[in-house]
Amino acid sequence: MAQSLIRNVDVLIVPEAGECHVAEAQDIHLTDSVITAIVPTGTPPPATPVEVIDGTGLLAVPGLINSHTHSPMVMMRGAAEDLSIDDWFNQRIWPMEVNLTPERVRVGARLACAEMLLAGVTTFVDHYFHADQIAQAAIETGIRADLAPTYFSSAGPEAIDAAIATTRELATLHPRITASLGPHATYTVSDDDLRRTADVARAEGLRIHLHAAETDDQTQASLDKHGVTPIEILDRTGVLDAGALIAHGCGIRDTDLPILARYADRTTVATCPKVYLKLAMGNGTPVKQLHSIGIRTGIGTDGAAVHNTLDVWESLRLLALTQKHQQNNAEWMPLSDTLSLATRHSAAAANQPTTLGVLEPGRQADITLLDLSAPHNQPLHDPRAALVYSVRASDVHTVLVAGEVVVRNRQLTKLDLAEVLADARSLAHTLVDLSQGSAIQHYAP
Amino acid sequence: MAQSLIRNVDVLIVPEAGECHVAEAQDIHLTDSVITAIVPTGTPPPATPVEVIDGTGLLAVPGLINSHTHSPMVMMRGAAEDLSIDDWFNQRIWPMEVNLTPERVRVGARLACAEMLLAGVTTFVDHYFHADQIAQAAIETGIRADLAPTYFSSAGPEAIDAAIATTRELATLHPRITASLGPHATYTVSDDDLRRTADVARAEGLRIHLHAAETDDQTQASLDKHGVTPIEILDRTGVLDAGALIAHGCGIRDTDLPILARYADRTTVATCPKVYLKLAMGNGTPVKQLHSIGIRTGIGTDGAAVHNTLDVWESLRLLALTQKHQQNNAEWMPLSDTLSLATRHSAAAANQPTTLGVLEPGRQADITLLDLSAPHNQPLHDPRAALVYSVRASDVHTVLVAGEVVVRNRQLTKLDLAEVLADARSLAHTLVDLSQGSAIQHYAP
Repeated sequence: MAQSLIRNVDVLIVPEAGECHVAEAQDIHLTDSVITAIVPTGTPPPATPVEVIDGTGLLAVPGLINSHTHSPMVMMRGAAEDLSIDDWFNQRIWPMEVNLTPERVRVGARLACAEMLLAGVTTFVDHYFHADQIAQAAIETGIRADLAPTYFSSAGPEAIDAAIATTRELATLHPRITASLGPHATYTVSDDDLRRTADVARAEGLRIHLHAAETDDQTQASLDKHGVTPIEILDRTGVLDAGALIAHGCGIRDTDLPILARYADRTTVATCPKVYLKLAMGNGTPVKQLHSIGIRTGIGTDGAAVHNTLDVWESLRLLALTQKHQQNNAEWMPLSDTLSLATRHSAAAANQPTTLGVLEPGRQADITLLDLSAPHNQPLHDPRAALVYSVRASDVHTVLVAGEVVVRNRQLTKLDLAEVLADARSLAHTLVDLSQGSAIQHYAP
Repeated sequence: MAQSLIRNVDVLIVPEAGECHVAEAQDIHLTDSVITAIVPTGTPPPATPVEVIDGTGLLAVPGLINSHTHSPMVMMRGAAEDLSIDDWFNQRIWPMEVNLTPERVRVGARLACAEMLLAGVTTFVDHYFHADQIAQAAIETGIRADLAPTYFSSAGPEAIDAAIATTRELATLHPRITASLGPHATYTVSDDDLRRTADVARAEGLRIHLHAAETDDQTQASLDKHGVTPIEILDRTGVLDAGALIAHGCGIRDTDLPILARYADRTTVATCPKVYLKLAMGNGTPVKQLHSIGIRTGIGTDGAAVHNTLDVWESLRLLALTQKHQQNNAEWMPLSDTLSLATRHSAAAANQPTTLGVLEPGRQADITLLDLSAPHNQPLHDPRAALVYSVRASDVHTVLVAGEVVVRNRQLTKLDLAEVLADARSLAHTLVDLSQGSAIQHYAP
């Protein structure tokens, strides 16, 4: 049992109910991967710590959780700009994804893990191809991940079988890796395949991560073609009953809310607000309405081919800003609720609502230490305001995942960053090659 | 004549018409404060440079221009959160501003200059009280500023006389300081006082920086009370004829456009999109409509009491994102136009359209060198996409203003940052004290 200690650190407390606040001058005691105590600095430790991290002048927050991403898409960062959602899919991304190979996915995932860890992200919830390669990158870099191997119905039953088999393998691979079933979306996976997915999920205790009701246009298209909304499809195929993380949900209608409410204990939504602005998708996720029926909403970045970063600080800031705009109410989505979404709710979106997302005894020691001393955060009248509206990823000083220091003094401890960058640069051109003249799928929801 | 050279640097070219692009491997030659040549690396220099800056691996962009701010308000950063615009003014900011003193303004301005320089901002366009103190901070720190001493009609004619006198003094104080006349807004300065301001401006060749049509509610209130829009007030009082920088303009109506078009050669607008989201002000500045009539739009942060940072990278990214959302068109406000607004247009908003904002011979050497090698910008398929959608202020490596290195390897060269921060921290509580029970003004537009 390895004992360690983060000494004399301020701690962001995210209560189940009530306001987030900062407890000053605390000692955080860890045993192996778990937080065992948070006590005022100087309280005698239960055992002699092997490692002591000096937290003086730093603020400890729950490691951020990227609730929805496609990590290897960092390889296409900046290669599909100023495009409509249709052109983004059909002219760029799905043709580019013909070029995916296990090696290219692994190289991209390693770069993504490096970017996220340096920004204080300790868990990412991923949905992509060659998920076994992403798992290896996560294991190597020290980050935590929930991985959903992506599948389309168009790829045929063998591809679906293989994706489901990968989920099963990943689920038992490593303590830091969990796995979800990964049908792509209601418009790319048939009702029959969604039903089969839900059956597997229920039988084996897996949950489902998929895209649904991404825009109101998609919802309208679903109504026009099938007479039902995407949420109604998830209901009738058993996906909601099995338990699902719904990416985006911007097209969730008021009539969908009573359906979702029945599954509030096992349904979460991930919201990625930068994407909704950038692709001109109209209103974002109806976070306030989902809150009113008890649906927890995590914050994510989506892939960097649209979001350009995997920076969850950017996402949580945009969530607060766009929610105020969308609700036409500057008092809505206050600091405390924003921080709760980025931590407690996002832990639920990562399917680990009781083990991650909060700094308290018994939880995993996924901890981000911030240095808020730079000019852009000073003077510090309210550290919560700094976390939502002025902090930068570059303020992340030290990061622990499962009690292990993975970033120390702004440097990765387990990865040769120069090598990761060199590998990504050498392969980048292969990913954005459009000469194949084919695509992995056509966007026509 | 001091010769210097930035050797082997990539350079962002912002043409008057056509696409922004990057010229690789250039040498930028400077003589004193002026760019004298930009030539392919290795071209023999016209004279032996005294100082050589190695630009290898860096991207040179025009120093960013913060087109509208109230720099000393960094002292209230994070002290007025989650409030309606009415409460923000009446419950917090205007009561807090009773506490302003010359010393507190100077300390705040020094912190603001430090924050901006480290983020690659080389010019700020300011509107505040005790502007002489802000000028001293700018001169000391090496940044460039256009300063408008703020006045309300409610303060009486002597206060207006004093503010106008300060503008005159600042206009001749220092090569890096220019000055504007600073009536606060159409709803806080009477038509008579605006007329007088316009007369002074025309007679003395000064321009006017003020708030107008900040929200559509303000425009409607003006119509209800006076039968004219704020823009019509600026027209009938001669402010537009004299030449104005209009802050925000979110409430500019279509009927205002023909009026503004008549003064397109001397009118600019500053847009601060984070503020419009955060205060739930509805639609932002109608940039597309203003473009269509030839009005140049600069990008700014407003004060940090609402924007929380003075980070123009954040502002320009939000400008692109919110414009796509507002126009419901992901192809609008493309990379190149966004960069042009942040440079060429913002130079016009700073009242220096021919001397700042572009890297070319004859312009002032206000240059920001960026290091885009960190994971969040890699691989670098399109450096313009990085500048708009993934760069962080922490990627700013070296900054020159008027040919002088003011940030070198991420450190301020002319300022003791620890002292600046200590001063700000020691005075911060005095600014947010609400015990006076009074306010400098009441918001009721």
